[in-house]
Amino acid sequence: MQVKEIGLIVGAGEGLSAAVARIMAREGMAVALAARSLDNLAALAKETDAKTYACDASDTRQVASLFESVDRDVGTPTWVLFNPSRRSRGPLVDLDPETVKQDILVTCFGGFLVGQQAAKRMVKAGGGSIFFTGASASVKGYARSAPFAMGKFGLRGLAQSMAREFQPQNLHIAHFVIDGSIAPRGGNGKDDRLNPDSIAETYLAIHRQHRSAWTWEIELRPWTETF
Amino acid sequence: MQVKEIGLIVGAGEGLSAAVARIMAREGMAVALAARSLDNLAALAKETDAKTYACDASDTRQVASLFESVDRDVGTPTWVLFNPSRRSRGPLVDLDPETVKQDILVTCFGGFLVGQQAAKRMVKAGGGSIFFTGASASVKGYARSAPFAMGKFGLRGLAQSMAREFQPQNLHIAHFVIDGSIAPRGGNGKDDRLNPDSIAETYLAIHRQHRSAWTWEIELRPWTETF
Amino acid sequence: MQVKEIGLIVGAGEGLSAAVARIMAREGMAVALAARSLDNLAALAKETDAKTYACDASDTRQVASLFESVDRDVGTPTWVLFNPSRRSRGPLVDLDPETVKQDILVTCFGGFLVGQQAAKRMVKAGGGSIFFTGASASVKGYARSAPFAMGKFGLRGLAQSMAREFQPQNLHIAHFVIDGSIAPRGGNGKDDRLNPDSIAETYLAIHRQHRSAWTWEIELRPWTETF
Amino acid sequence: MQVKEIGLIVGAGEGLSAAVARIMAREGMAVALAARSLDNLAALAKETDAKTYACDASDTRQVASLFESVDRDVGTPTWVLFNPSRRSRGPLVDLDPETVKQDILVTCFGGFLVGQQAAKRMVKAGGGSIFFTGASASVKGYARSAPFAMGKFGLRGLAQSMAREFQPQNLHIAHFVIDGSIAPRGGNGKDDRLNPDSIAETYLAIHRQHRSAWTWEIELRPWTETF
Repeated sequence: MQVKEIGLIVGAGEGLSAAVARIMAREGMAVALAARSLDNLAALAKETDAKTYACDASDTRQVASLFESVDRDVGTPTWVLFNPSRRSRGPLVDLDPETVKQDILVTCFGGFLVGQQAAKRMVKAGGGSIFFTGASASVKGYARSAPFAMGKFGLRGLAQSMAREFQPQNLHIAHFVIDGSIAPRGGNGKDDRLNPDSIAETYLAIHRQHRSAWTWEIELRPWTETF
Repeated sequence: MQVKEIGLIVGAGEGLSAAVARIMAREGMAVALAARSLDNLAALAKETDAKTYACDASDTRQVASLFESVDRDVGTPTWVLFNPSRRSRGPLVDLDPETVKQDILVTCFGGFLVGQQAAKRMVKAGGGSIFFTGASASVKGYARSAPFAMGKFGLRGLAQSMAREFQPQNLHIAHFVIDGSIAPRGGNGKDDRLNPDSIAETYLAIHRQHRSAWTWEIELRPWTETF
Repeated sequence: MQVKEIGLIVGAGEGLSAAVARIMAREGMAVALAARSLDNLAALAKETDAKTYACDASDTRQVASLFESVDRDVGTPTWVLFNPSRRSRGPLVDLDPETVKQDILVTCFGGFLVGQQAAKRMVKAGGGSIFFTGASASVKGYARSAPFAMGKFGLRGLAQSMAREFQPQNLHIAHFVIDGSIAPRGGNGKDDRLNPDSIAETYLAIHRQHRSAWTWEIELRPWTETF
Repeated sequence: MQVKEIGLIVGAGEGLSAAVARIMAREGMAVALAARSLDNLAALAKETDAKTYACDASDTRQVASLFESVDRDVGTPTWVLFNPSRRSRGPLVDLDPETVKQDILVTCFGGFLVGQQAAKRMVKAGGGSIFFTGASASVKGYARSAPFAMGKFGLRGLAQSMAREFQPQNLHIAHFVIDGSIAPRGGNGKDDRLNPDSIAETYLAIHRQHRSAWTWEIELRPWTETF
């Protein structure tokens, strides 16, 4: 008997996360979607036959509860994608510290909470994939955007540490540097922004890699992007 | 009239921070020292003729208050060093999330709070240096040490973003990758751990750089260190 | 009419290059194989129905001649893989300079020669993929292995420069950091060395990427590899 | 008896190398200057009381001969700086391969030749510094500038490999990323290009570092530089 794969996306919404959900469904996986608010998830959930969960990814208790619910409703995830981020921009001296703190907690600490819950289960199950979505800001700290740099650099540190700890336990940990802005679904005709469906194909290819040749980090950008 | 330089060290204690304080004093600067607890600062304060301040670097209000006190007691700092860090180690699945959150807030968010207060004043004053102490974990996420990787990667992102924003405003932002363990004062005879006084000489050399040739990042390790 | 894809592998032999050749053939591409010596290529050429060419990749005239022959015999390549490398190891003071020079010329200058001939044709044709095989030594200079570090760092510099120049001309340039040793065909049962067929699947996935979401660099290592 | 330090600069000329020569002389070191042509070295040699040598840094025999001459005329160098580079720019498809080969040989292979001769002597002597001058192109491959990227990436690989091999033998190996253009001597008043005398002060500070806290890599750029 072929066990059905179970995909869980934390930070589900439009764009990239929706594209990954569709690919999970296309590949025959059971899909679970978590987001801070369920308001806009109904259509995607229907399209991918997914269970949905409201969850603030920066809240320890809510993340634990999310995974318990998924265990019960769907089963232990075999592929978890952490996608949320939050950022403030503007002159650093004008930023509100409490807002900046929340930015870091959502973008980086949330990744820890989700990674920890996923790893607990996958170590027991003997395998699985935990993927983290990064950005240009994961490797380059832009002016007037320190909160995003702090969150995304920190998330990359988490992903690298988890790769070193968990890959020898058969968990595939990968970090994606999305270096450019994402186009609406279907692209924009000129291909000069990242088409979410195209990104999602690469996520799937990395998930499908044989463990003798795993990727920890990969970057993606449009052909026209200066970098 | 030569204006006296004012050095402020946040996260003052033994080791590197004490060595920088001594170098500041040796160079004729007025010195201000801040630490979570003042219990062990008396001898260093006496030696460097420094004012001391109790401050939790991850607390927005306390950091604002610290800078107001330094303004009043000593003057606007011309050289600020952010030094604090906190970390939990062990299998990721065993870490306590609330402890991890505090690790990130001290190591990374605290850097933002201190950097913001320093930048506000230095932009008005027309110049100054803001330095951040990093570690091996700033650029390499080690297994079973994700909290330190998150905090130190994030702090590096902050420092890089601040360099891009503030260097064109005449603020020298620098990040130091201390790649190895620090020896007690005076070294250990074999020089196979970082001598804090030697590190501090490099901090001073970077602070003294002419603005036509500023360093943003520099790494330091013992001659014997494999890397 | 669907135009047939044409794959050219420079530095063809056992291991990774043979695996890519097989995948090209499996995908219905015409295959051309170039190597310094044709002695061991007969079986692979038969298996992949490939034309073979003797070519020293560090020789300007031979590389030009190779591409002219492929043009004539097979057509303009749509996917070129540069694979050769040469290295000397040992204490740096004992290395023979002329041997080191040849190492650099094969590993790095050869990449330029092949990249230039490929780019000339692909720019005219309006598209194509040029891939370069790197190694751990592309991003980390190991002790007693400077010639490999020089060659592979240099090749990475070439690949990055070519990506910036040619991606906006619809040429996909990619650099693969193969971080570990490659197992014999079929793997070794423990998956603790890179299976060449598994690496080749990732090469294909990158070649198949839509241009709105291209990867310039990707690393591959076994699940058990410490890094 | 205090042994006199001996500084050797390979690739001596105007700008940075002249500034380092002046600092060596100011610090009381004996100075040796090597360049492809001696035509413009007379004034600098007089100012720094230096011996001068004609040497093509990419020629194995000439580099060996240079070090033998310095041994005989001045003594074993305690501080060697490798500075030469050569580059071709323009569309990659238009570059002349033989010119590109020479670019790589001067910028990268020349570094090997000089590093090898210096290391041989310093290992016997029990210590010394070998420094390599890099550029923005050492860490970023710019479009239409592949030859410089190949040479400078490759030189960085050499420097990193040599640091790992020789630092535990008490040789300080350092690589300088000069990220910006260098102003004429004395700067340009706005400090928006690197002042060579300011760069040279940092070279000296790194040379003076205690071996318990050595820097392998440091970057330098003007305060106004976007990066």
